[in-house]
Amino acid sequence: MPDLRFLLHGDESLINAELARLPAAKAASTVHHTDKAISMDEKPAQAMRRGKGSSVWNAVEAIKEGAATAAVSAGNTGALMAISKLVLRMAAGVSRPAIVASWPTLNGVTAVLDVGANVECDAEQLVEFAIMGAAFHHAVHGSVRPTVGVLNVGSEEEKGHDEVRGAHALLRATAFDLDYRGFVEGNDIAKGTVDVIVTDGFTGNIALKTAEGLARFFATELRATFTSGPLEMLGALLASGGLGRMRKRMDPGAVNGGPLLGLNGIVVKSHGSADAKSFASAIRVAADLARSDFAAEIDRNMQRLTATLSEVTAAEPAEGVAQ
Amino acid sequence: MPDLRFLLHGDESLINAELARLPAAKAASTVHHTDKAISMDEKPAQAMRRGKGSSVWNAVEAIKEGAATAAVSAGNTGALMAISKLVLRMAAGVSRPAIVASWPTLNGVTAVLDVGANVECDAEQLVEFAIMGAAFHHAVHGSVRPTVGVLNVGSEEEKGHDEVRGAHALLRATAFDLDYRGFVEGNDIAKGTVDVIVTDGFTGNIALKTAEGLARFFATELRATFTSGPLEMLGALLASGGLGRMRKRMDPGAVNGGPLLGLNGIVVKSHGSADAKSFASAIRVAADLARSDFAAEIDRNMQRLTATLSEVTAAEPAEGVAQ
Repeated sequence: MPDLRFLLHGDESLINAELARLPAAKAASTVHHTDKAISMDEKPAQAMRRGKGSSVWNAVEAIKEGAATAAVSAGNTGALMAISKLVLRMAAGVSRPAIVASWPTLNGVTAVLDVGANVECDAEQLVEFAIMGAAFHHAVHGSVRPTVGVLNVGSEEEKGHDEVRGAHALLRATAFDLDYRGFVEGNDIAKGTVDVIVTDGFTGNIALKTAEGLARFFATELRATFTSGPLEMLGALLASGGLGRMRKRMDPGAVNGGPLLGLNGIVVKSHGSADAKSFASAIRVAADLARSDFAAEIDRNMQRLTATLSEVTAAEPAEGVAQ
Repeated sequence: MPDLRFLLHGDESLINAELARLPAAKAASTVHHTDKAISMDEKPAQAMRRGKGSSVWNAVEAIKEGAATAAVSAGNTGALMAISKLVLRMAAGVSRPAIVASWPTLNGVTAVLDVGANVECDAEQLVEFAIMGAAFHHAVHGSVRPTVGVLNVGSEEEKGHDEVRGAHALLRATAFDLDYRGFVEGNDIAKGTVDVIVTDGFTGNIALKTAEGLARFFATELRATFTSGPLEMLGALLASGGLGRMRKRMDPGAVNGGPLLGLNGIVVKSHGSADAKSFASAIRVAADLARSDFAAEIDRNMQRLTATLSEVTAAEPAEGVAQ
């Protein structure tokens, strides 16, 4: 990424020691020293109170001050979220932020959101997630007109709770710049049935972590299988090229980088355990978002949502949406 | 299963044609003819209205009449649930039924419930699921004192919504015949961290189907890998023993059979796509439940729950539970 420049916030001596080994990165970087850091177990409220001047705070504030276009952090998610909301504020019309996960599928990459920012979400918030997720998929994964589904326990209209049925009705009723396909189920995630899957942060977090757990279970079983005897070990050796390509294709690190959507600014969360290649992928996500008309796209669709909601409120009775 | 006897409900001529090829099964079976069947797309309400005399209805009614100890069906889940509730009624104190899934893990089998019967559940219902899931795991998977967790987005006390925090408080406060371990996360399912994982039917259904989707994705990738070139194909041939054992260990069919818990009688749902071996596993689940003191165990713990709830209601203010 030769045309990017980096502001590195944190302990100068630690950062400079790393940069000494990386002349290209050093040339593209400016170090902003702070010895204040938010620890991984700090609560969001505490991080907001005492976070000012910490590396996370400074990285986010640099966006507000116009010194940076995007911030990337592999630190404490709750603190990053709280500080970003406080410093950058929510984008016009958006009520809640969402964390989006890029999920490798049989069919490319599906964006799933929210995966943890909001434990409970109403119908309008789910529609906001649809709008933000579609703009994200367009900007980062290159879909022209993203297909969108709402995660539910069945595809029939009457399935699920009020929130998902309300979101379904609003998405059907409004002419957004996205291709709404209705309800999808859990197995549609890995199938890649749609580009964007919308869900509340409770369900999304559990689906994502369930999948991560299962992926590790598979990897463990596969390793056990290929060390279970001499034939199996020889088989693994012969198939190592294909197995390596498979690992790469299914590697969650290949699509590391979960943006916090809905803020006045681009903030991307990297996995805490990301290696250099994986962290670079989070930076690429931030750069793709920064170069796109992502924010304007969200804004246009948010205006359509507001128009639909005022029509619905004006009409009596409020059909389909307020249930 | 030589000591079981079967009442087979359905179209006599179709059943007899199959039994003609299976003399042992024929000797253990009595055929109860009906030409009325519930189709797979029939709605539960419709199935209740017009279901009387159908094969599903008759199978469930045979329990009520004392002719059978358990019913097993691979038909329409919603219809089976509705007819079972109508004919058998809920067990004493249990407010809602739950469907339980047996999930192969690194550590044995974890029972996850509810996986689809209830879209929304309050704290008390989640506690009922814990009680029923523990009795199920003890009866079918042989744990002596099952460990139980509540599925959440984090393990800290303050995480999640009111329902999971309320269930957590009740499970902590009551001396049930189970070993409550607190909150678990999505990745704990495949890890086998606990024997029983409790969740609402919306989240449970999505977690289960997400995992099924990922398992198919993985199988597809593995097949593609082992046919991607001559070395890979030779590797697969050499490792075929180990790969076959792995498939068997991870095969969801090996633990087919999801009981509908909470009824006055044992009703087990088999996968609609189950083959003979897999359907036999559903029958084994039903037989294990029938031979255990499963119902009495649930009853004992339900009485403890009722006692705790009346203490909580008597105390002022109602700490921790009603939030």
